[in-house]
Amino acid sequence: MAHARSRSGATPVLVGQLDLAPLLKPSSVAVLGASQRMNRATRVVANLQRFGYAGPIFPVNPKYDEVLGLKCYPDLASTPQPADSVVVAIPAEHIPAALEEAAEAGVRAAVVLSSGFAEAGPAGRERQAALERLAKERGLLICGPNCYGAFNIRLRSATFSGDMPEPLLAGDVALISQSGGFSTMIAERLMPQRGVGFSYLISCGNQAGLTVEDYMEYLVDDQDTQVIGAFVEGFKQPDKLREVAARAAAKRKPLVVMKVGRSENARQATLSHTGVLAGTPQIIEATLKQLGIVQVSRLNEMVETLALMSAAKDYDGGWRVVVTTGSGGECGHAADAADQAGIELPPLSTSTIQKLKRALPDFANPRNPLDGTGAMYENAELFPYMVRTLLEADGFDILAVNLNADPPRPNGRAPARGFSRALSAELANGSDRLVLCFSSAIGGALDGETLETLAEAGVPYLQGTETAMQTITSLRRYRLHLQRRAHASIGTPPRSDGRGSWQGRRGALSTMEARGLLAEFGIPVVETLAAADAEQAVAAAERLGYPVALKIDSPDVAHKSDVGGVRLGCADARSVRDAFEQMLDEVHRHLPAARIDGAVVQPMAAGGVETILGVQIDPLFGPAIVFGLGGIFVEVLGDVSIRVPPISADDALEMISEVRGSALLRGVRGHAPADVRALANAVVRLAALASAHRDSLRALDINPLLVLPQGSGVVAIDWLVELAE
Amino acid sequence: MAHARSRSGATPVLVGQLDLAPLLKPSSVAVLGASQRMNRATRVVANLQRFGYAGPIFPVNPKYDEVLGLKCYPDLASTPQPADSVVVAIPAEHIPAALEEAAEAGVRAAVVLSSGFAEAGPAGRERQAALERLAKERGLLICGPNCYGAFNIRLRSATFSGDMPEPLLAGDVALISQSGGFSTMIAERLMPQRGVGFSYLISCGNQAGLTVEDYMEYLVDDQDTQVIGAFVEGFKQPDKLREVAARAAAKRKPLVVMKVGRSENARQATLSHTGVLAGTPQIIEATLKQLGIVQVSRLNEMVETLALMSAAKDYDGGWRVVVTTGSGGECGHAADAADQAGIELPPLSTSTIQKLKRALPDFANPRNPLDGTGAMYENAELFPYMVRTLLEADGFDILAVNLNADPPRPNGRAPARGFSRALSAELANGSDRLVLCFSSAIGGALDGETLETLAEAGVPYLQGTETAMQTITSLRRYRLHLQRRAHASIGTPPRSDGRGSWQGRRGALSTMEARGLLAEFGIPVVETLAAADAEQAVAAAERLGYPVALKIDSPDVAHKSDVGGVRLGCADARSVRDAFEQMLDEVHRHLPAARIDGAVVQPMAAGGVETILGVQIDPLFGPAIVFGLGGIFVEVLGDVSIRVPPISADDALEMISEVRGSALLRGVRGHAPADVRALANAVVRLAALASAHRDSLRALDINPLLVLPQGSGVVAIDWLVELAE
Repeated sequence: MAHARSRSGATPVLVGQLDLAPLLKPSSVAVLGASQRMNRATRVVANLQRFGYAGPIFPVNPKYDEVLGLKCYPDLASTPQPADSVVVAIPAEHIPAALEEAAEAGVRAAVVLSSGFAEAGPAGRERQAALERLAKERGLLICGPNCYGAFNIRLRSATFSGDMPEPLLAGDVALISQSGGFSTMIAERLMPQRGVGFSYLISCGNQAGLTVEDYMEYLVDDQDTQVIGAFVEGFKQPDKLREVAARAAAKRKPLVVMKVGRSENARQATLSHTGVLAGTPQIIEATLKQLGIVQVSRLNEMVETLALMSAAKDYDGGWRVVVTTGSGGECGHAADAADQAGIELPPLSTSTIQKLKRALPDFANPRNPLDGTGAMYENAELFPYMVRTLLEADGFDILAVNLNADPPRPNGRAPARGFSRALSAELANGSDRLVLCFSSAIGGALDGETLETLAEAGVPYLQGTETAMQTITSLRRYRLHLQRRAHASIGTPPRSDGRGSWQGRRGALSTMEARGLLAEFGIPVVETLAAADAEQAVAAAERLGYPVALKIDSPDVAHKSDVGGVRLGCADARSVRDAFEQMLDEVHRHLPAARIDGAVVQPMAAGGVETILGVQIDPLFGPAIVFGLGGIFVEVLGDVSIRVPPISADDALEMISEVRGSALLRGVRGHAPADVRALANAVVRLAALASAHRDSLRALDINPLLVLPQGSGVVAIDWLVELAE
Repeated sequence: MAHARSRSGATPVLVGQLDLAPLLKPSSVAVLGASQRMNRATRVVANLQRFGYAGPIFPVNPKYDEVLGLKCYPDLASTPQPADSVVVAIPAEHIPAALEEAAEAGVRAAVVLSSGFAEAGPAGRERQAALERLAKERGLLICGPNCYGAFNIRLRSATFSGDMPEPLLAGDVALISQSGGFSTMIAERLMPQRGVGFSYLISCGNQAGLTVEDYMEYLVDDQDTQVIGAFVEGFKQPDKLREVAARAAAKRKPLVVMKVGRSENARQATLSHTGVLAGTPQIIEATLKQLGIVQVSRLNEMVETLALMSAAKDYDGGWRVVVTTGSGGECGHAADAADQAGIELPPLSTSTIQKLKRALPDFANPRNPLDGTGAMYENAELFPYMVRTLLEADGFDILAVNLNADPPRPNGRAPARGFSRALSAELANGSDRLVLCFSSAIGGALDGETLETLAEAGVPYLQGTETAMQTITSLRRYRLHLQRRAHASIGTPPRSDGRGSWQGRRGALSTMEARGLLAEFGIPVVETLAAADAEQAVAAAERLGYPVALKIDSPDVAHKSDVGGVRLGCADARSVRDAFEQMLDEVHRHLPAARIDGAVVQPMAAGGVETILGVQIDPLFGPAIVFGLGGIFVEVLGDVSIRVPPISADDALEMISEVRGSALLRGVRGHAPADVRALANAVVRLAALASAHRDSLRALDINPLLVLPQGSGVVAIDWLVELAE
């Protein structure tokens, strides 16, 4: 097993693929700290018993001979066979020694439930470091600390301290959650309540040994797992995440991630909770999006997304939705929600309308969403007829049935039971449509019988119209990613020859050095000549042709115009000479200590759309490319789009089209269409530059990058490059 | 009772305040169409019996002598006393005659459950018109048709066909819903599940007689009702809505509205469902917002908002929130949700941190959100100590306790019960803080005992972190509206003297006519002289000073520049003469039939920020003022804000600040700050103009309205005014 220090220098992590079988498929389990009181460790013993784990269970506690009817051992060395996995719930300060002992006794995996590690000040951080050393040096697979543990649902190996209501249901959804509480909350809504089965439920806490990415990697290759959900406070291995996401896409296994930490307060809370720095939210979000990872922002959305992804594994059709309901009010509600989620609800064809009119009451107006009216509850033939008609109708791919699976009502009616049975019967001969049910609101008690009928028919039951529509959009977006991925060809960008004049430099590059770096990667840069004195400036201007711009040339000046370091529109030799002298004086007055190498001279640029192209760096995830339109768009509106390298030409085009003002580039208000292809090319090349120099680059801004009319390319007018000190 | 035709000419509605007592407090109820089969009418009889309505119930059906143990009457004339209210569930075609008979028999209110009215083609519309005539001519109070009916929870008068699970709970929340299904869905989540009591539950369907606004009006004056929720597909009486909202604000009774119909599809669905045109969503939204009506966009948000509004009636404090939880994962989750909702979670003070550290485990980091850690579940003293400390801490107004009210777990633990009891005990001596509980996700079974403890302590239980935070924001916004309202003084705008030269005109006004209208209302307009021929144009230019702009003067030209009708920058007499002749030729070539009155001459405007100010008309809600920045902002970004008259100067300032590009007016990028006060004044005056001419105005655009530097005012440069034909 190889190990490496992560790029950020934060935490040593395991690299290479790990075999998590000792943790996730343990042949025996020891529980350290189990007692005759119902504490966290005892609860694990109880869970193993209650769920029916078949392997031997060894409570370990020198104080007792027996725990929950099982023989209790004084220490790990005394168990009749070395436990495959050990669960540890003892005070944090004793854990490093206990794990040392465990490794010594032949234990291969440890679930550390206790808190008091990276989240707990200097002493805690030292304890976490000890666990990390153990993982590294002894190859111990550590889940946690500060977690609920790992639960293989098929094997019933509940090395897991959470309270999971029964029935457990084996299936193909795996969930990884740093938060223990959220792991059971999500699983409970799916397994016992919705009939969506699980392969694994893993609460991984502080990720001292194994990280979210390690579990993902294992699960992507796991035959029992088809859909992977993750609640993440902080990623730790972005490179592994990239590899795992690519492999997951190749296997068509969706990764659904809820990442908290968009707000500064949340990032601080996460640091305080798990000791992990959460990173730059925009860069993480862009990374996940580009990797085809489905992002959700609410716990309920996680639940519904996993339910749909699991049910729609084999669906291979389109995205035109027809909605049916028994509530007139839901028609407007569903139409609004679909519109909001970008879901198309095409109109019914004339022949479908005619067919429906035959069965619906006179007063009904068949349309999409289709209101079955109160008649749906009175006439048992109506709903099956509607479903049959819509399943046969042209022009649709998905049938979304609004159905509130309430338990039987006070008068004994449970219309949803009849509807679910009818739906199941209509689908008995199969359909290439995707059929799903959704309730108008989330929550409220659910009728088990209805849900069971639907689950058996392979029909997911999603809660909340808005969430259901959002979930369909997420599935569509995911499938689009898989398709694009199949056709993607990212052109090989020019490689740095590593011999730029700026090599070995630190801090801000001079204008000419930075120009060399941009040019080396094929980014068009305005012609720029260096001038050490006024006469050289005049000579340069004569070569370039008037009018020219003069800019101060100094590695110590980051924002030239703030210190008088820019002179525009010098129209003749005299004004160049005057501008040069005045500019150097003014800059010197502002920054007496700055090294000034003279000025650079450029021809005045004319025309084109001003854009801004830059590189932003996340300490863990590395560089991201930021694009925006110049002028008010970035400064006033904050209107930017962001991608991480590598960026293909198609990605770049999409990135450009994402900013709100991109219509300007297409040529509104009498402007000629701009050279968007050349702009996309510059984005691709800047991404290549950022990748090649990801370890040394600290900041890069091209502002403005002029986008000239179609066919005329782009040209960088001003730029700033900073390298790490 | 007075009646009037609504401004839109759509539907005759009742005006003036109505006494809904016969409908909402009936002393006796007849049920037309009740039978020995469990149909909709029979279900009403069953509901009246089950919930314990104390007045006489008269089933009416010539086919039976007895229904559900009650004597059944052949017709309404045969009941021992005239029923106060009659519930009707017979085929739609028989209903007009039946209601005629009912009115004859002395019945004062009717609940029409049946469908087949405005939503059902020409025959249905005729039936609905018949109901409207009955309401008007006989003063019959009609609820419905196409509804579940009306339910007075205290009186248990369930003239209501929906299935409402028990227990009913009397309280101060009233709900009006056009949709029957949503009425029970919302009420069920509040009454039996959350212990939030109701005064009335009204499903009003097509609103043939009584409209949403009529019910609101009654409920605002009802002593039993403090909070009013409404699910609305289409409003019918905007003027009454305005009055009711003002009275509700005066009485501090929040109106919470979920209005569907943002999408075109939803508007069509609504038309199809209730026969009501839904109106322009942006104008309705602006109206509701200005009226202080709390708008929600999901059913779950309606539930939570009603729960909080009901519990926080007497809360009078600030909005700084401290969150406490027993889940580390929730800290980041809650912080993100608070950030998203604009809720402030200030840091804990040093002394609060010290106090908390005394009780929390060593590894805990007290901050806001506060993680009680696993210790909260082990040490029964910890949670009460945390609550006490935070209730005493300076710097907070609201304590939001994250608490998942799960029913007892498999091992019998129900930690939420202990937490709710502790919370209740801490609050026993009262607190001026607002204390609420919230779950991390929505849905899942709830523990009745926990919810009862919280309800008794006056602590609302809200579901879903995001929704809970959003709900706090809604409450804050509502309270802000009440405060502002108390201080608002809307300046009296100048009144039209009604003698403008454009009086009596139809269609587009000429440039000079329109200029007169704007000037009459005090909107600064650029100096503009009419010129019938080239020599008059030159004379005008000499008077104004060169350079000047020439614009075609024709009531038949709406978009001057599209037909060559604008010439800018004419610098001398000759260019004015040439421009005049060429312009008239070109316009004539484009529009040979247009009447051309010559040209208008204006000085060329210079400087200032270009804005667009216009009036948009909704057929029912009337005019709205639309504001945006010129150039790309409206055209490319669609960046506008909207308000309905009357608009105060403060409203106008807020409206201006709402557009994304408003920073431009404050003077970014080297521009001087613009005269925003003068701009606000122009908005106020345009609103006055739009109000004064709401019946005749069809469209008005000022584009551009130049906003000059501070102190220099604004000036309209070009405009277009169309009156109704």
